[in-house]
Amino acid sequence: MSGSEAHGAAPGTSLDEQGLIERHFRPLATAPGAFSLLDDAASYAPPPGADLVLTKDGIAEGIHFLPGEDAGVIARKALRVNLSDLAAKGATPVGYLVLLGLSDDWSEDWVARFADGLASDQDRYGATLYGGDTIRSGRFIVTITAFGIAASGGIVRRAGARAGDHVYVSGTIGDGALGLLVAQNDPRLASLDESHRAHLAARYHLPEPRVALAESVARFATAALDVSDGLVGDLDKLCTVSGVTARVTAADVPLSQAAGAAVKIDPALLPICLTGGDDYEIICTVPPEKASDFEASASSAAIPVRKIAEVTQNGGRAEFVDSAGLEMDFGNRSFSHVGSHARSHAASHDRGTYSGR
Amino acid sequence: MSGSEAHGAAPGTSLDEQGLIERHFRPLATAPGAFSLLDDAASYAPPPGADLVLTKDGIAEGIHFLPGEDAGVIARKALRVNLSDLAAKGATPVGYLVLLGLSDDWSEDWVARFADGLASDQDRYGATLYGGDTIRSGRFIVTITAFGIAASGGIVRRAGARAGDHVYVSGTIGDGALGLLVAQNDPRLASLDESHRAHLAARYHLPEPRVALAESVARFATAALDVSDGLVGDLDKLCTVSGVTARVTAADVPLSQAAGAAVKIDPALLPICLTGGDDYEIICTVPPEKASDFEASASSAAIPVRKIAEVTQNGGRAEFVDSAGLEMDFGNRSFSHVGSHARSHAASHDRGTYSGR
Repeated sequence: MSGSEAHGAAPGTSLDEQGLIERHFRPLATAPGAFSLLDDAASYAPPPGADLVLTKDGIAEGIHFLPGEDAGVIARKALRVNLSDLAAKGATPVGYLVLLGLSDDWSEDWVARFADGLASDQDRYGATLYGGDTIRSGRFIVTITAFGIAASGGIVRRAGARAGDHVYVSGTIGDGALGLLVAQNDPRLASLDESHRAHLAARYHLPEPRVALAESVARFATAALDVSDGLVGDLDKLCTVSGVTARVTAADVPLSQAAGAAVKIDPALLPICLTGGDDYEIICTVPPEKASDFEASASSAAIPVRKIAEVTQNGGRAEFVDSAGLEMDFGNRSFSHVGSHARSHAASHDRGTYSGR
Repeated sequence: MSGSEAHGAAPGTSLDEQGLIERHFRPLATAPGAFSLLDDAASYAPPPGADLVLTKDGIAEGIHFLPGEDAGVIARKALRVNLSDLAAKGATPVGYLVLLGLSDDWSEDWVARFADGLASDQDRYGATLYGGDTIRSGRFIVTITAFGIAASGGIVRRAGARAGDHVYVSGTIGDGALGLLVAQNDPRLASLDESHRAHLAARYHLPEPRVALAESVARFATAALDVSDGLVGDLDKLCTVSGVTARVTAADVPLSQAAGAAVKIDPALLPICLTGGDDYEIICTVPPEKASDFEASASSAAIPVRKIAEVTQNGGRAEFVDSAGLEMDFGNRSFSHVGSHARSHAASHDRGTYSGR
């Protein structure tokens, strides 16, 4: 690397990024405050009484996605993990800023497909591009800061769950973890129906953030977070920071038909579903007197939710019990019936995100 | 790379980032809405009537800083290039989110020094940490989203300069570009006094964002941007988007004593000063009737500013003339007296930032 490369401004090492912007990114910057990406910064005027909600996450080639992954999928995944955070906080998405780090073998076509991925998800989730930066970074890296709004003081935190609250989870748990096993051609899933295998792989490949559930969370939940590091670990985080305990019967955790079929083939896959991460579902706690209203609100948003526990006491942990009523221990991915709880596993499992994924 | 690494959640590949947060980053997250970095997202309640101003920039090892650079300097540089954008928009900094991408040989000590760098600049510039993400990324990468506030509708854009406005630049121009040459042991600067060499190298090493000038910009400027890609190219951008022309006599551009001494040794260094980038000064245009108030305001903020041109006509470009009154051509870094103007050079020079650096 020459000094002028370190400087980043030598002719010939340029990305012609102005051209890339004009051709691919400017069409995404539809908000007036994005200034058509022609300025140093963007402007956003929040509605009176609204709080900003901000989150930032990044994904890197070779760590969070495989080399050769489709650029559009990378873009959408990077955006979606951020939108999932906003949804879990009860926030309505507004916009995002994206840093695209290009590997040395980047191509215009790659950038075009990347922008197309953002474009399709902008339409889907209602957030537009407010700015960003494109740099060379050796390998592909995408970092996104997404922002949304919540009513003043209305952000739903991880802290806030109270004894008596019902614990809900959206959608189904474990598909992402099993989808990774499918992608790895794990022999335990070799005999699974092809349609089930495809379902699991798709859910691992590209998460579906529960943006549509944000309003229900905002209106009814006392605490919430999104399930990115596994139900066990993430529920444990909510309980720890809220200072409450939730006791979940594993059989009550909603599984997809595909995951259910996999667990029927090999029951040892159940703890993988519960701890494996990449679900991007929402856990939230709702006071019992609001439970039916929350369920109705989620239903009208077409998001399935299931009650999996009640917050039974103070204490600060999540407990999972099997069909025999014995507490499950997920330490070191092993599955056994001993007295320890999930927190040590959750900690070792953490993806390394703060105010993030 | 194993599949579990791609998944990012395998035990043993963990960063123990919860530990890193607790030890190094939580002390930086002093705002209530940062929730001590214990949540999925942060919350910020803007004052009534304020607009958010957002910018995002990133720097990568081997591109924007050399391998082995001090972690604290990397952190401060990443933060400062963002704060420079906010200052140029007339915005008061509030907070930032940081994604830290770690190389495979990262160490706890490196992270500690990185966080120390952020800590010292937080105190210096008055912005606090609102969240972020730490990932492994093969090489060190830092991306920061900074946000600030401006009065409703008060963001100062690149567009807005009007015929008759005075063009001001803060501080001195060219130190960053010459500092790079010093770092490269360029023979043209070998005979320069050691104190001058040290001054230039320091200004290249770590920019000084003009945060203190933001209020003056907000109150009096019709257009502004920060000088990151070189005075010639950046003034050209302002003129282009504002649809005006500014004619600058090169001798009027403020140089530091060190840069002045260097140019005296080799006059061919002047165009490098004018085009080289990494100044992180502010260009702004001020209506003539407000010029003295702007100068007084800048003076009370202890930021030197100098008028370098007047916006003389519509047209959409910046012109630089030498002491003989001939227009300078900076194309391809060569310096000659021909009729073409700076824009082609500015385009080739662009660092690849939109709504950014």
